[in-house]
Amino acid sequence: MNGLKVISTGYYAPQNVLNNFDFEKMVETTDEWIVSRTGINKRHIAKKESCVDLGYQAALKAIEKIDKNKIGLIICATMTPDYFTPSTACLIQEKLGLNDQEIMCFDLSAACSGFVYSLTVAQALLQNLDDKYALVIGSEEISKIIDFTDRNTCVLFGDGAGAVVVGKGTGVFASYNNSAGNLEALKAPAIGKMNENHYLSMAGQEVFKFAIKVIPESINAVLQKANLTLDDIDYVVCHQANYRIIKNVYKKMKSSEEKFYMNLQEYGNTSAASIPLALGEMDEKGLLKSGNKIICVGFGGGLTWGAVLMEWS
Amino acid sequence: MNGLKVISTGYYAPQNVLNNFDFEKMVETTDEWIVSRTGINKRHIAKKESCVDLGYQAALKAIEKIDKNKIGLIICATMTPDYFTPSTACLIQEKLGLNDQEIMCFDLSAACSGFVYSLTVAQALLQNLDDKYALVIGSEEISKIIDFTDRNTCVLFGDGAGAVVVGKGTGVFASYNNSAGNLEALKAPAIGKMNENHYLSMAGQEVFKFAIKVIPESINAVLQKANLTLDDIDYVVCHQANYRIIKNVYKKMKSSEEKFYMNLQEYGNTSAASIPLALGEMDEKGLLKSGNKIICVGFGGGLTWGAVLMEWS
Repeated sequence: MNGLKVISTGYYAPQNVLNNFDFEKMVETTDEWIVSRTGINKRHIAKKESCVDLGYQAALKAIEKIDKNKIGLIICATMTPDYFTPSTACLIQEKLGLNDQEIMCFDLSAACSGFVYSLTVAQALLQNLDDKYALVIGSEEISKIIDFTDRNTCVLFGDGAGAVVVGKGTGVFASYNNSAGNLEALKAPAIGKMNENHYLSMAGQEVFKFAIKVIPESINAVLQKANLTLDDIDYVVCHQANYRIIKNVYKKMKSSEEKFYMNLQEYGNTSAASIPLALGEMDEKGLLKSGNKIICVGFGGGLTWGAVLMEWS
Repeated sequence: MNGLKVISTGYYAPQNVLNNFDFEKMVETTDEWIVSRTGINKRHIAKKESCVDLGYQAALKAIEKIDKNKIGLIICATMTPDYFTPSTACLIQEKLGLNDQEIMCFDLSAACSGFVYSLTVAQALLQNLDDKYALVIGSEEISKIIDFTDRNTCVLFGDGAGAVVVGKGTGVFASYNNSAGNLEALKAPAIGKMNENHYLSMAGQEVFKFAIKVIPESINAVLQKANLTLDDIDYVVCHQANYRIIKNVYKKMKSSEEKFYMNLQEYGNTSAASIPLALGEMDEKGLLKSGNKIICVGFGGGLTWGAVLMEWS
């Protein structure tokens, strides 16, 4: 399988921040409880910006230094689009001033696994797009589907976006993607006959058990495909749902917190945005060197889960 | 480029039908006006069934005679999902009893071009899925985003679903996909801060002009890639938006109504479902023979447009 060459990254989070003490005034909770159960200290909550705006800001940063004419594909992973149509990807294309060039634009809906799925799709489509780049975005305005009176969910999530530009590469690449339909574990109704409210609901314990099972499964699947071991990997970037999930995984896999990058303390769970947001931040900090091998692991609503193993370039 | 082998098809439309005379009682319109402007006689409108249910029925028919263990990918093209999460594809996976096998499931949002886009994505992903099949579904419960007091849109759309199972093939295959972000031409707000209603709105004249430009563009693009002419093609299956659009195109291209299959008189515009619904119907009628070359053309909200040229097998 051909690899992916990472050309550039970008990320963005809204300025407005809610910390745990803010939530003490809103629902029956405490900073101590939130930190000990989730590892989250604060989250960014969009006030005037929408999912398109967040994704646009991340994408703008990702493409500022590249040859924009080479972009032939824009995928936006999101479960909180502004519109059923146009897609978030199309509206970001327009805002980036890229309407006049031939680009395939669509949104991909796979909840918190959306970015990993989208990288897999981009890698496959790039094989047929000679010399083109893919702009792969994860953007979520998840605050609009959060019930801020429900202490079980409202402290967990935040808004944000991340973007990567990738092209065909020669480095190692492996991908694993899996699903099992389940409406009880995680649910956010769209407009429908059901007249349900549109708030996200989650069976926390069930999702925790699911996560600590499928993250190692996904990591091991791509390691096996690439004929590598976890020792060969420089960073594992998990979907940033919960510190206790990630800690459980690296302990079970006899690895370390240093290898499992985390920024959930700053952003909370930003769904499909969490992995590209982390990659953008790591790239900005200079943590990612050419030749580094990284694994990105997504898991979430659907249920969906999966991982991509790739070489940083 | 490797081709696609079509393994099977299925389609489904809700039993409940609204004909043009029903609309005469609902809004200021007439059967004569609707038929002369659109070619539509009736449309199927779901009462108790949702987007998942419609897609499930089409998928169930498509997989009834195949080895279900070979399904490794389910893509559902839709702009009217039941949930922001789980995806329609995941819930169809569950209803089909396929939760226990490794399948990548996601929804793809590209409005009326969604099915053509999804075929392109499936063809690319299948190259990495040895010996697996993709179940590609288009499903729309578009009635839930229709304002039934708006005579400009309510007579045009209908609910339905279609599905195809495809595998890697050796026949000719070419694909062209393009977009240009545009919020004015076609719009259906999802949940957002904007507090807009969620009804679909459309600038009819603008969309008409767009359609008669991009359909020939898309057909010519895939013909050129495959080094074929329209004479080599057995059927062109356009997104079923409007008889006048399709007639304008086949006249402009010096082709015939016989080559441009139409069933919009029966279903109206079913968005991403229209092409697989037509393919399923044509397959059931025995119109599609092994070796036939067909072109599917999508166009719609985004704006998005594109075509797939493939050999029936």
